[in-house]
Amino acid sequence: MDVIPLHLGVSHFHTPAVAVMAMQEAVGRHNTYYGPNEGLPELRYALAQRYLEDENAPVPAEQILITHGAKHAIHLYLQSLLHPGDEVVALAPYWFAFPELIRQSGGKLVTVPANPEEGYAINLEDLRQKITPDTKLLILTNPGNPTGKVYSLAELQQVAHLLEEFPNLHLLSDEIYDGLAYQGRVNSFLHFEHLRDRVAVVNGFSKSFAMSGWRIGYLIAPFDILHKATELQLKLISGVSPFLQAGAAAATQHRHQIWQHFRTDLDTRRQLVIQELEQMPKLKFTVPDAGYYFTLQVDDCLQPKDPASPFQLVEEWAAALKDQVGLEVLCGTKMGMPTAVRMSFALPEEVLESALLRLKAFAS
Amino acid sequence: MDVIPLHLGVSHFHTPAVAVMAMQEAVGRHNTYYGPNEGLPELRYALAQRYLEDENAPVPAEQILITHGAKHAIHLYLQSLLHPGDEVVALAPYWFAFPELIRQSGGKLVTVPANPEEGYAINLEDLRQKITPDTKLLILTNPGNPTGKVYSLAELQQVAHLLEEFPNLHLLSDEIYDGLAYQGRVNSFLHFEHLRDRVAVVNGFSKSFAMSGWRIGYLIAPFDILHKATELQLKLISGVSPFLQAGAAAATQHRHQIWQHFRTDLDTRRQLVIQELEQMPKLKFTVPDAGYYFTLQVDDCLQPKDPASPFQLVEEWAAALKDQVGLEVLCGTKMGMPTAVRMSFALPEEVLESALLRLKAFAS
Repeated sequence: MDVIPLHLGVSHFHTPAVAVMAMQEAVGRHNTYYGPNEGLPELRYALAQRYLEDENAPVPAEQILITHGAKHAIHLYLQSLLHPGDEVVALAPYWFAFPELIRQSGGKLVTVPANPEEGYAINLEDLRQKITPDTKLLILTNPGNPTGKVYSLAELQQVAHLLEEFPNLHLLSDEIYDGLAYQGRVNSFLHFEHLRDRVAVVNGFSKSFAMSGWRIGYLIAPFDILHKATELQLKLISGVSPFLQAGAAAATQHRHQIWQHFRTDLDTRRQLVIQELEQMPKLKFTVPDAGYYFTLQVDDCLQPKDPASPFQLVEEWAAALKDQVGLEVLCGTKMGMPTAVRMSFALPEEVLESALLRLKAFAS
Repeated sequence: MDVIPLHLGVSHFHTPAVAVMAMQEAVGRHNTYYGPNEGLPELRYALAQRYLEDENAPVPAEQILITHGAKHAIHLYLQSLLHPGDEVVALAPYWFAFPELIRQSGGKLVTVPANPEEGYAINLEDLRQKITPDTKLLILTNPGNPTGKVYSLAELQQVAHLLEEFPNLHLLSDEIYDGLAYQGRVNSFLHFEHLRDRVAVVNGFSKSFAMSGWRIGYLIAPFDILHKATELQLKLISGVSPFLQAGAAAATQHRHQIWQHFRTDLDTRRQLVIQELEQMPKLKFTVPDAGYYFTLQVDDCLQPKDPASPFQLVEEWAAALKDQVGLEVLCGTKMGMPTAVRMSFALPEEVLESALLRLKAFAS
């Protein structure tokens, strides 16, 4: 049986044509030599302009480091910030790559659960209790991956107050799905200017711009940390392809049209998934505010909740889903949600419809 | 005064048109999504085919990891091989990035001088004496950077014998300038099949293919080390842009025409530099076998050899060269040659002619 890949972090959209054209134009101008390690000025200025226009947040272009994707930006940031033994607090569920990225930089991940029953809201009291003298960093993923949760300005304000309470605590805000929010707006943590000496933002073009294969991300960080990250990029790898960055700059300039198109298309799919999932009572879900994942709680399909189930672990359930109906999903075990799976809905319409029929056949 | 950049490691050639066309064709097929972490099969197979055809060295495509440039390949290799305190032996002069790459992986660089008076030949006895129980790795750069030295098969054979003497010693052969050898042939260390469990080769497209801004390199290494490097790339950065790799694959297939063209062009320039340098008796040089650098020994222009000279350090000489006649060169201090500089001759003809006139005015 063919397997429909619902586990991937990639959408069905093509790279925006404006990005391809600008890239080709740069190649035509022979901008194929080494670019500046810190990034192409036209991309750094386009991004600075973006935060000024959309967030009213002044960010100097010099504070933006262009990296080989957002994962690389996070790695450079953690390498520049953490010392062995430092604790890093993150809400669970979290992006599956974080534990290893933190471990590689000598840090120790401490998680605070956010529950689907409460819409993955931040439990500030729980968070506060996990902060110790060894806590160096708090990681926020906004919009959430896998949850699709977008934090309100009021919620972010509470986190900002927490940072004020703990003057040595840094914050990393991973905002890579920010163009795909169905209400059209994600508040960047850059909003809190008075905390800018302890706040970093990571972002990139893979998700909101459907440019996953372009490998372009960026880091906005306090200057001392940014300088270390920039040095590290120079020493260990060098900067990003300048002609690809020209494409990313054009995409940034056309972001509103691109995002409008992506969101409208994705929202139709999101509504279809909601409509179908409502007919599968054993799968609990929350409606994502952004991005293209649903997080499905499958504990009603597992022992002990369902004594008749052949499955104890979510991995067994997911393996049967793949074997029996050809659907591959991502198990939540590595994302801090041990009885849930992540499924993407960024698929061509007929493929998504087929996937939902298969899911219903399996889980009803 | 305008400054002519003789310090850069980049040639005046445009990226080969076949690479650009293949890349654009891949973008047209929307190959703009995440590619495989280990590399695009068509590039890995093209490279395997290349070593089979050119070196008669069978390398499975599965043993080739595509990385974000050769520097990144070296970093992944060293991270996968070295433990803190391991010693790494290299001939001096060496590529300026090696000391920091080794340091970042916890290793300690130990150098063995190779002298211009002896054509930068390997002094095997000196090399043998530097090998201790802590020596994990020997680094060979062939063709040499900055020296342009190409080792004969007989010389490489001697190094192979040394490896047989020390059964725990690994070897990394950096062969990134291998397409630019004026005799048309560089022997890869992959030739020695019986040592393949301890030999790694790093290479890339920046130099021999004039694709510096594409950021594509590769690592061929023993499987256990390669697997660690591949895991590390996945965890910390993810794989290289697939559509760029399509361009690199096409360049590999057309390598003989590309290299023929580059070498013919560069050789004309090399002859011009030789002719001019012969009229500057205070600058000693060797004729490079490959690549586009001359290494100039400037000790005759410094104190104490020239008591009338205002300069003690090569940095002072190079600063005056830039200030007085607008030539920027790379000081050898960070390359293990404290009284020499590296100058590139991969420049448009009229620029190179102007540079040589300026050099003669300064150094005569």
